[in-house]
Amino acid sequence: MKVHNEYLTVQTKQKREFQNITPSVKFALEKSGIHDGLVLVSTLHSNAAVFINDEEPGLLADLDAWLEKVAPHGEDYKHSAKFESNASAHLQSLLVHHQVLVPISDGRLELGPWQSVIYAEFDGLRPKRILIKVMGE
Amino acid sequence: MKVHNEYLTVQTKQKREFQNITPSVKFALEKSGIHDGLVLVSTLHSNAAVFINDEEPGLLADLDAWLEKVAPHGEDYKHSAKFESNASAHLQSLLVHHQVLVPISDGRLELGPWQSVIYAEFDGLRPKRILIKVMGE
Amino acid sequence: MKVHNEYLTVQTKQKREFQNITPSVKFALEKSGIHDGLVLVSTLHSNAAVFINDEEPGLLADLDAWLEKVAPHGEDYKHSAKFESNASAHLQSLLVHHQVLVPISDGRLELGPWQSVIYAEFDGLRPKRILIKVMGE
Repeated sequence: MKVHNEYLTVQTKQKREFQNITPSVKFALEKSGIHDGLVLVSTLHSNAAVFINDEEPGLLADLDAWLEKVAPHGEDYKHSAKFESNASAHLQSLLVHHQVLVPISDGRLELGPWQSVIYAEFDGLRPKRILIKVMGE
Repeated sequence: MKVHNEYLTVQTKQKREFQNITPSVKFALEKSGIHDGLVLVSTLHSNAAVFINDEEPGLLADLDAWLEKVAPHGEDYKHSAKFESNASAHLQSLLVHHQVLVPISDGRLELGPWQSVIYAEFDGLRPKRILIKVMGE
Repeated sequence: MKVHNEYLTVQTKQKREFQNITPSVKFALEKSGIHDGLVLVSTLHSNAAVFINDEEPGLLADLDAWLEKVAPHGEDYKHSAKFESNASAHLQSLLVHHQVLVPISDGRLELGPWQSVIYAEFDGLRPKRILIKVMGE
C-alpha cells in the first residue's frame, strides 16, 4: 500500500467561511500516483469541519444559518468562559464532522455529480491546517 | 492491498425510507475474498445517508421524526427556492453522515450484536447509487 | 498492508461519561509496528460514540448539555416503549458519530494540538467494547 501526504493551510478572511477544497484533493491524488483506494481529508483543528455535500451557495447559506440555530454562538457555555474561542464552533464541528473519506477508483476521485469536498471554518482569520492523506495502490 | 468495488442502486417507494443494507455489504465482502481490512459504504448523493445503528423499527421511526424536528422540511431555505429538492434532505444527510466504515476481521464484518448498516433516503422515488468499497488483505 | 486489532473494554461508573482514550490508541499503534496509515476507532455499540475534539472539561460539559437539549432523554420515543435503553442515547450516538479515523504519519498519531480521541458513553454502567484497528505499512 502506498501512502502520500499533503498539507493544506487555509486562512479565511472571515470568522466563518465555507470553501470547496475538491481541487486540492484532486491535486494530492495526482501527485500520489495512486489508482485505487481512498483519500482521508481531515482538519487538524477542533473548531472546523470537512464534509462532502452540494456546494450550491444557497445551500451553504442555509447550512450556516442552521448550524447557528442548532448550536448557537453566545450561549452561556462553560468552555467559552475560560477560552477565547467559542464552544459553539466545537459543537458545530462535531455536528458536521471534522473528516471525510473520498473513494478513488480508476485514478479519479469517485464523487457523485452533486458532491464536493467542503471545508467549513467556524473560527477563522488565522492559519488552519488540513491533512490530505492518499492511500492505496 | 486488494480493492473490490460494488455498486448498489436503491429506488425507494417512498420519498423518505430506511433500508438495512447489511446483506449487500456482506455479499460484497464475500465476492472480494478479503479477510482483514475495512469496507467503505458511501452514498454518491447529497440528500441521503449511510450509518450504523440499531435497525429496530421503533427506533428508525424515532430517528425519522427527530430529523424532521431538528432540520425541518418546509422552512424558508435559500436552496429550496432555486432547486426542486429540499434543503432539509441535505441538512439531514450532514447530520447523520453520508458514509460509514465497517471493519473486517477473520473474513467477517465486525459489527456489534445491535449494529446494522442502514441506508437513509431523504429524497427518493428515483434511482440512487451507493458505493461499497472493500479494502484489505 | 499490515493490520493490527486491539479491543478496549470500558465500564463507566456513570450512565453518561466522556473518556479520553488517546493513550489506548497510542498503545495499539506502538504494538502494531505500523509507521504510516490510519487507525479506525469504532464502538461496537449503538448508544455510545467516538469522536475527535478538545478534551477540555468545560467543553465536554457543554457538549453533554447540548446533546441532551438537541436529543432529549425522556421524550415519548417508540424505541423506549419497547426496550430498556433510551432512544435518546441512540440519537446522540448518531449526532456525534460512532467511529473516527486517526491518521498515522512517521510512526505517530497525527493529531492537532487540541485534538484527542474521546469515547462518549450514553448508556453505561456495564462493559462496552471498542475496536481499535491499525492499518498501514
